[in-house]
Amino acid sequence: MIAVHTDRLADLVALYAEYAACIDEERFDDWPGFFTEDCVYRVVPRENHEAGYPLATISLKGTAGLRDRVYGMTSTLFHAPYYQRHIVSLPRIVGNEEGAIRVEANYLVLRTKRDEPSEVFNTGRYIDRVVETGGGLRFREKLCVFDSELIPNSLIYPI
Amino acid sequence: MIAVHTDRLADLVALYAEYAACIDEERFDDWPGFFTEDCVYRVVPRENHEAGYPLATISLKGTAGLRDRVYGMTSTLFHAPYYQRHIVSLPRIVGNEEGAIRVEANYLVLRTKRDEPSEVFNTGRYIDRVVETGGGLRFREKLCVFDSELIPNSLIYPI
Amino acid sequence: MIAVHTDRLADLVALYAEYAACIDEERFDDWPGFFTEDCVYRVVPRENHEAGYPLATISLKGTAGLRDRVYGMTSTLFHAPYYQRHIVSLPRIVGNEEGAIRVEANYLVLRTKRDEPSEVFNTGRYIDRVVETGGGLRFREKLCVFDSELIPNSLIYPI
Repeated sequence: MIAVHTDRLADLVALYAEYAACIDEERFDDWPGFFTEDCVYRVVPRENHEAGYPLATISLKGTAGLRDRVYGMTSTLFHAPYYQRHIVSLPRIVGNEEGAIRVEANYLVLRTKRDEPSEVFNTGRYIDRVVETGGGLRFREKLCVFDSELIPNSLIYPI
Repeated sequence: MIAVHTDRLADLVALYAEYAACIDEERFDDWPGFFTEDCVYRVVPRENHEAGYPLATISLKGTAGLRDRVYGMTSTLFHAPYYQRHIVSLPRIVGNEEGAIRVEANYLVLRTKRDEPSEVFNTGRYIDRVVETGGGLRFREKLCVFDSELIPNSLIYPI
Repeated sequence: MIAVHTDRLADLVALYAEYAACIDEERFDDWPGFFTEDCVYRVVPRENHEAGYPLATISLKGTAGLRDRVYGMTSTLFHAPYYQRHIVSLPRIVGNEEGAIRVEANYLVLRTKRDEPSEVFNTGRYIDRVVETGGGLRFREKLCVFDSELIPNSLIYPI
């Protein structure tokens, strides 16, 4: 078990809480701001991840890639609107590597469609590399490994 | 992003954990003790909240109002019993205002009716004002903004 | 409310996050390592727990008992495979007792069967006694009190 510095933990809690709030409040234009310029963002089924297959449901590179995605999700993709609600479990500092903190956290995303009850939408594990920048902690890499293959084709918004 | 003091974060974690435990363990008489005398407690659908409509599903004023509600939920309201289970996500310090800390946290409440499996009941965001009192941190205002309009008419216990 | 020392909170957050990760990643051989030699591990329905009935769904003693269970779940029990995902809420330090910290935390376990969507599997409260050992914090007692009686007969993996 890696020794956890309490200041670091508080900063990470703030990072993950801010990240979830940004998405759930649909401030999508702010979403790329949580990443470094050269970031990688991937959403991958657990089975593929564990088998070492490279196939990803979503794979974006750099904040430019994230901004393109935001444009797509808010302007061009046709979909019924839904709310998301992230419940992020206690974050876990797994190690340090090339100047980055490796952090993992379990997440649950609930979805609420108009006139329907809230439901379990997507659950899995964030496997992240977090770096210190002049503007605070940022994700250099964010991997969202989700448990169910049976993901609705309407995975539109960020996880 | 607001700088988070780790002692403050630990106190807030304790406050939210105690609050959830109080409700889930059905120690309802202790529930008003988490609030200031002049508190406001409201449960509001997200759509109304975002549109700025004042309509609330539940709106209580002062610990006297909360105690009335406790009397109602335990003595007069007719309803099938159910267990609640709160999962509160990482709290987020949003700012300071008029001597209060503005804190937000995502929540999920699971409900278990007798002889039924546990199910997603209510999910949303706490938008709170927390103040320091001689007796520790208290809610001056607690707003529970829930995602689904389709709330069962049996929203009896506190969120 | 018990005063929370931030270092202690950070250690507990790490313990609960590591524990959940161990189970969810199916590193079951490491699971007994989170407990003291003379530990008690029990999974109990809430109704029994509150009524003071001793009946438990699962009751294991000592790390030897846990290792037996691991052997059973991985080698002899016949069951369809499923993934688990733990969402652990903010931990709550309830007190100190005989050299142990009494900690409670709400938990939600989601289950994903092959080719099915993720679903709420089990939710309840950990009621634990945690002790300091040379190897870090360990569970001397872990009680998993779950809300629904209607637990699938396939409660195979640890909670």
